[in-house]
Amino acid sequence: MKGIQDYYPDHFAQCYGCGRLNEHGHQIKTNWNGAETITKFVPKTYHTAIPGFVYGGLLASLIDCHGTGSAALALAKAKNIVLDKSNAPRCVTASLQVKYLKPTPIGSEIEIKGIISEITERKVKVSCELFADDMLCVTGEVIAVLVPDNFGKPKNANLQ
Amino acid sequence: MKGIQDYYPDHFAQCYGCGRLNEHGHQIKTNWNGAETITKFVPKTYHTAIPGFVYGGLLASLIDCHGTGSAALALAKAKNIVLDKSNAPRCVTASLQVKYLKPTPIGSEIEIKGIISEITERKVKVSCELFADDMLCVTGEVIAVLVPDNFGKPKNANLQ
Repeated sequence: MKGIQDYYPDHFAQCYGCGRLNEHGHQIKTNWNGAETITKFVPKTYHTAIPGFVYGGLLASLIDCHGTGSAALALAKAKNIVLDKSNAPRCVTASLQVKYLKPTPIGSEIEIKGIISEITERKVKVSCELFADDMLCVTGEVIAVLVPDNFGKPKNANLQ
Repeated sequence: MKGIQDYYPDHFAQCYGCGRLNEHGHQIKTNWNGAETITKFVPKTYHTAIPGFVYGGLLASLIDCHGTGSAALALAKAKNIVLDKSNAPRCVTASLQVKYLKPTPIGSEIEIKGIISEITERKVKVSCELFADDMLCVTGEVIAVLVPDNFGKPKNANLQ
């Protein structure tokens, strides 16, 4: 199933967390699920913190990319952009807050839900909840900002 | 050079971010540098966000483990523990806050500095600053809590 990340232009699709073109990365996919957004991910066995539990740094990074993906979905919707090929808006994270309510058990699929709590022309706040085995383990808040289309694009890219 | 992470008991040394026994992980080392703590790390080329810049999720996870390592150093010092073999205290993250001030350039060594801003018997707050090319790119705050010695240890471990 495609996610918003499949509609980023190629130079915005290199991210270790969510870039479809990063073969070493997590390649997460973020979608609408009703009025909320959702990302699912199965950590590897070596993504451990303390035996039996998922590494909190990985959970923070998943919330980060779920947040920017959710923000892109929200901006596309607000601007009536019909997603097609590589026309999705791209956001980066300005700030990230993560609270670890309880250890996240390793071995099952993680679900991250997002609620768009604020949106302006260039900034989106996303409130996140991370579940494992239907148990709320982590909450997070991401403030994501829209980047210019040519940010990070190689200069003279047309000549290469 | 050894870090506090080299003094964690084996069952606390599996962490993807800082465990010396996790062959897939980052294996960061955290030490005192005067009254501050320090961790250095060189991201891989694939740890990218947008071309030219480091993935923010990685930076969050480095701050996370730098925070727990700094907290362990601070608790060892406060409790007059002489580090030897596997007697370091072990903390996990209760909350993590990260602010991305500017994109972090990829390709050079990252330095994370920590200041112990609060410490109690079981809880430590660490204020972090992350530099690349001597430029302050990210700030963070970690609240870390001490875990019991047998947390995550296999039951009947002595029988195995």
